[in-house]
Amino acid sequence: SRSLNLAVIPGDGIGQEVVAEGLKVLSAVLPQDVKLETKEYDFGAKRYHATGETLTDADLDALKQHDAILLGAIGDPSVPSGVLERGFLLKLRFAFDHHVNLRPSKLLPGVATPLAGEPQIDFVVVREGTEGPYTGNGGTIRKGTEHEVATEVSVNTAFGVERVVRDAFARAQARPRKKLTLVHKNNVLTFAGHLWTNVFNKVAAEYPEVTTDYIHVDAATIYLVTQPERFDVIVTDNLFGDIITDLAAAVSGGIGVAASGNINPTGAFPSMFEPVHGSAPDIAGQGKADPSATVLSVALLLRHLGHDAEAARIEDAVSADLAERTGKPARSTSQIGDALAARVAG
Amino acid sequence: SRSLNLAVIPGDGIGQEVVAEGLKVLSAVLPQDVKLETKEYDFGAKRYHATGETLTDADLDALKQHDAILLGAIGDPSVPSGVLERGFLLKLRFAFDHHVNLRPSKLLPGVATPLAGEPQIDFVVVREGTEGPYTGNGGTIRKGTEHEVATEVSVNTAFGVERVVRDAFARAQARPRKKLTLVHKNNVLTFAGHLWTNVFNKVAAEYPEVTTDYIHVDAATIYLVTQPERFDVIVTDNLFGDIITDLAAAVSGGIGVAASGNINPTGAFPSMFEPVHGSAPDIAGQGKADPSATVLSVALLLRHLGHDAEAARIEDAVSADLAERTGKPARSTSQIGDALAARVAG
Ligand SMILES: CC(C)[C@H](C(=O)O)[C@@H](O)C(=O)O
Ligand SMILES: CC(C)[C@H](C(=O)O)[C@@H](O)C(=O)O
Repeated sequence: SRSLNLAVIPGDGIGQEVVAEGLKVLSAVLPQDVKLETKEYDFGAKRYHATGETLTDADLDALKQHDAILLGAIGDPSVPSGVLERGFLLKLRFAFDHHVNLRPSKLLPGVATPLAGEPQIDFVVVREGTEGPYTGNGGTIRKGTEHEVATEVSVNTAFGVERVVRDAFARAQARPRKKLTLVHKNNVLTFAGHLWTNVFNKVAAEYPEVTTDYIHVDAATIYLVTQPERFDVIVTDNLFGDIITDLAAAVSGGIGVAASGNINPTGAFPSMFEPVHGSAPDIAGQGKADPSATVLSVALLLRHLGHDAEAARIEDAVSADLAERTGKPARSTSQIGDALAARVAG
Repeated sequence: SRSLNLAVIPGDGIGQEVVAEGLKVLSAVLPQDVKLETKEYDFGAKRYHATGETLTDADLDALKQHDAILLGAIGDPSVPSGVLERGFLLKLRFAFDHHVNLRPSKLLPGVATPLAGEPQIDFVVVREGTEGPYTGNGGTIRKGTEHEVATEVSVNTAFGVERVVRDAFARAQARPRKKLTLVHKNNVLTFAGHLWTNVFNKVAAEYPEVTTDYIHVDAATIYLVTQPERFDVIVTDNLFGDIITDLAAAVSGGIGVAASGNINPTGAFPSMFEPVHGSAPDIAGQGKADPSATVLSVALLLRHLGHDAEAARIEDAVSADLAERTGKPARSTSQIGDALAARVAG
């Protein structure tokens, strides 16, 4: 019999509530013969305040034992900005070498978008997750004086760029439109830009069926609001990916439905799946949070582990649920979870 | 009698056409006693192909003699990407220390926006223009091999950050809403982020009437499409400013009406004003380009030189012209220029 051994990190704010619904839907969708085991971890603001710890080596050893990680949200106004982001979220990404940061954007029927008209949005951003300006390289001299100089170093390696570019080409090849867009700023950031462009073109030669193009990151933000239908798969640097995926989430229905995967495709470490939204402390504990983004993150998790049919069933369920919302009274977090669980159990 | 001695750089593609209309409107708006002198420079793709030059020391010496510079557009597909951008546009910005890169975004009545509803958009981005990841710092080792490492170094100085932050506070103080938002990514880019945040907070203490807030650049892109009315003045780093001002232009009517100033507030060198759109080679020479962005750049130029009343008259004229377009047949570049010139001569 098969098994699925999951690390669950509810985290802060609405994280608790949405993760509960994610697990509810997961239990409902899994075939009888897959044994689901979950272990909950208490990372986040509470643990930080109690112990000063964000993510220890022992924690990492424990997390390593799981097939995958489901996370709700990490972050609380009581913790100084950056402490949990770097001490937990980025630390985990780097420790488990989550170099493929996967962020699908699909505007589902019935979902409101800030864009006028009826934009067609269905693309995936493959954001590099372990290099670029996120490596913590850089420093400060003469701190606090009028002569302070602060640097940030974006580090890009052929190894790091090629593996994520390859992942993106494989994803583009597997999609009907087979189109891949490289987003960078190679006219200004010439060192990193040259490496990205070169590697992209080299790998492109191995994928003759994939149509490719290149656009600068500034122009990409224009296309995301004026012609989002032009995108199929996007591959980009860590920081550019951070920026454009928030915009992509906003135009395709908001961060309330945006799912993401922090993936290590080699399987050397478990991958982590989380909704793009944060901990939303203002509505925490009130049953107001929409668990759809978490449920869709569960679908990404299942697809990553090879449970494609179950992933598709979850996506269809969320899609159907969203399509029927218009004009209905608002439901609580757990009511939405119940509805989705009922649909996938079908 | 007063004079205005302008360097005019029509440049490539539609640059020629739109600059002609900008000058037409400028002549029409200037008071009789201001003597307008213009000198045209041939920078751009043609000169590059003929001589290999983009912007020489002698060119810079010549440009220095002027009160300000009006530019149409630089860039052509016949020149490799980056050559004119770095060899001309960025070289000029750095040579003349254009550290205040000013980009107003105002959604004028009658102008189409990709956003649904009727968003209220009226803000100004003060983008730092001479530091950050634009300094060309960085390098490559083992180029072209599987062990290549490419770095980009963002350089930020207290001097460079403070002068642009001060400029932004002064602009916020002068606007009715008196609100200034710092956009950065200080939870990840901690060295530069700390410097920016510290300087921002220090200068804020001198402007008790200005309301301040901070948002991460990724979240800023969400607000730009969901709540653009929340912004009044934004101050940000060179690269973040590059990205969010293209998005800002897109949501506030497109780059067809987006003006910009590359300003050296000290007056040590002439400032340069240009439409945000590029050379649009696909429609060049056909009289199809909208000169409004260039005409609005002329308004920024006039305000920079203290001709506030004339600047306001141009802005009102463009506003009125745009408001009356709906349902009318399209006009040529010079017809729009004529109409604006007639309005400002009024
Ligand atoms: C919380 C932060 C460190 C993180 C990032 O910048 O990657 C977040 O914005 C994201 O996109 O996952
Ligand atoms: C052409 C390019 C170098 C330039 C920049 O990146 O600053 C442009 O995008 C801009 O915003 O003025």
